[in-house]
Amino acid sequence: MSSATHDLGALLFTLVLILLVAKLAGELAERVGQTAVLGELSAGLVLGPSALALVHESDVLRFLGEIGVILLLFEIGLHSDLDELIQAGMQATLVAVVGVVAPFVLGYAIALAFGLPTLTAVFVGATLTATSVGITARVLADLGRLEDVSARIVLGAAVIDDILGLIILALLSGLAQTGRFSLDVLLWTLVTSVAFLSLALVLGVRLAPWLFRWVIRMRVRGVLIVYAVAFCLLLAAISEHLRLATIIGAFAAGLVLAKTDERAHIQELLHPTADLFVPVFFVTIGLKVQLGVFNPAQAGAGPLLLFTGLLAVAAVAGKLVSGLAIYQRGVARLPVGVGMIPRGEVA
Amino acid sequence: MSSATHDLGALLFTLVLILLVAKLAGELAERVGQTAVLGELSAGLVLGPSALALVHESDVLRFLGEIGVILLLFEIGLHSDLDELIQAGMQATLVAVVGVVAPFVLGYAIALAFGLPTLTAVFVGATLTATSVGITARVLADLGRLEDVSARIVLGAAVIDDILGLIILALLSGLAQTGRFSLDVLLWTLVTSVAFLSLALVLGVRLAPWLFRWVIRMRVRGVLIVYAVAFCLLLAAISEHLRLATIIGAFAAGLVLAKTDERAHIQELLHPTADLFVPVFFVTIGLKVQLGVFNPAQAGAGPLLLFTGLLAVAAVAGKLVSGLAIYQRGVARLPVGVGMIPRGEVA
Repeated sequence: MSSATHDLGALLFTLVLILLVAKLAGELAERVGQTAVLGELSAGLVLGPSALALVHESDVLRFLGEIGVILLLFEIGLHSDLDELIQAGMQATLVAVVGVVAPFVLGYAIALAFGLPTLTAVFVGATLTATSVGITARVLADLGRLEDVSARIVLGAAVIDDILGLIILALLSGLAQTGRFSLDVLLWTLVTSVAFLSLALVLGVRLAPWLFRWVIRMRVRGVLIVYAVAFCLLLAAISEHLRLATIIGAFAAGLVLAKTDERAHIQELLHPTADLFVPVFFVTIGLKVQLGVFNPAQAGAGPLLLFTGLLAVAAVAGKLVSGLAIYQRGVARLPVGVGMIPRGEVA
Repeated sequence: MSSATHDLGALLFTLVLILLVAKLAGELAERVGQTAVLGELSAGLVLGPSALALVHESDVLRFLGEIGVILLLFEIGLHSDLDELIQAGMQATLVAVVGVVAPFVLGYAIALAFGLPTLTAVFVGATLTATSVGITARVLADLGRLEDVSARIVLGAAVIDDILGLIILALLSGLAQTGRFSLDVLLWTLVTSVAFLSLALVLGVRLAPWLFRWVIRMRVRGVLIVYAVAFCLLLAAISEHLRLATIIGAFAAGLVLAKTDERAHIQELLHPTADLFVPVFFVTIGLKVQLGVFNPAQAGAGPLLLFTGLLAVAAVAGKLVSGLAIYQRGVARLPVGVGMIPRGEVA
């Protein structure tokens, strides 16, 4: 019935390998007191080109991983409270800004100290700010702390960080092409992100409950989960179309559907599907680790190691410092700083 | 965090469209007394190149559809009883053979009557035997009749039909290349299918309960659904590797896991994931409808229409006749014949 291609069999084997190893590594990580996500990332490292080279990136795998992180942020959104998130907004913004600026400055300084040209140093600094909302969110979920005040701040900061990261990326590609920073790009990204998020949330919170009251009156099988996920993918596609990250739309979709009567039911139905896809995302991230963005090949092995080591420290320290940006009383600073670290790790 | 490609956005939009329209069309079909799957197939037709041309085939879409039919057959397997299926075995084999031979002979005769050469007539006959276990199974599920005796016979026949279809396909490609039938190919496909199915079922039924008792003792989130689906994908990949269809492995995986203590739990977890993927399969099938295997362009529009019409009648009639192959008393012949029709329809 289906045309038998060798690609299909190979892809299925790859998927089996990813799922098996991800969960085994996750289990191992949990048994030694780490979070499962660390195991899944390592699974990608082990299976990827840096080690066993059993799994290679492909369009299909990349898409499945993307669905994974989209469903993860959708799920996190479903478990979050929009009002509380807005309350944490100012606080989160501050943490996000410090969490981007501190590693940038440290990376830039280290690169300059190693004698790299200014423009290269800017790029080195920028790579350290690279974010992964997915990993932050997943670590918080693994620790069972998604409901804490500090978790909300980290999560809010992570989303804002992602927007800041996109702005930096846009600025850098402009800089690389024209040699100067473009204010247009900065403003455009800022305006579209804010406009998209506000519109999606304001319209969504009004329309979704009405829409889903209609959906649950349909008779066909599986209509609730299909329409919930379609709604999530739609916002993800729109936010991708606006050159924002898909996960921003997915998170917004989760926040919106959390306001409907079907929240608990959708959460329950989404759970196993997310379980299947999320590991694929983390494994594909792990696969990429070897592929460095910059390659200071001119330096010898010794200095290179020192350079990389210092950058890793800078990435972690820069994120830790962001916890100090908390002014609210009674909120632990250290957990917030620690919560921001995983993003430095991936970069 | 993810590299923003235009492809990703377009793919997500496509997926949203497929899910939305599939469920709407399914709902419509149910309201007018048809099965939902007919609506989903029509959704593919409407979205595809024959009509609105909003959705085009792609590697990713094809893979998602393949996962859909794999999960569908896995689910059907989970709901089936291996022992009862074996009891229905002889009966099912007869139905399957008649269901392949009858439409083949009719198609061959019609093509000859229209003056097509013998070799072409053989291919026309063969296209009418093309099977779709997925559609048969789904129609039975939509009708809520998976537990009937006649349903078991249809299902068993459908799986055997799929193997027969593969044999015919292999024979035909040999015929097209060398001009004669190859007995080797016939024997090889027959032996590997029987060997694979027996081995998968015998080994699986012994090993799976032991394996899954170990799996449920793991602590990481989502391990049961991930390992159940990984097991299904593994058997699907192996059966693809042996040049059998993926769905044969998926169905066997379902039959095996139905024998474990976790059966009910796996069914429950699999349900929403299958709900998401299965429509993608049927829509992609609908997309293909326009792409005919043969194209008698030499004939005018009038005779072409008559020719197509007669073939459609032959396909349906050939499948209906297969119901007559039932010798067991007390089993309705008509439902079995009708159950075999959908496969003729798609061809």
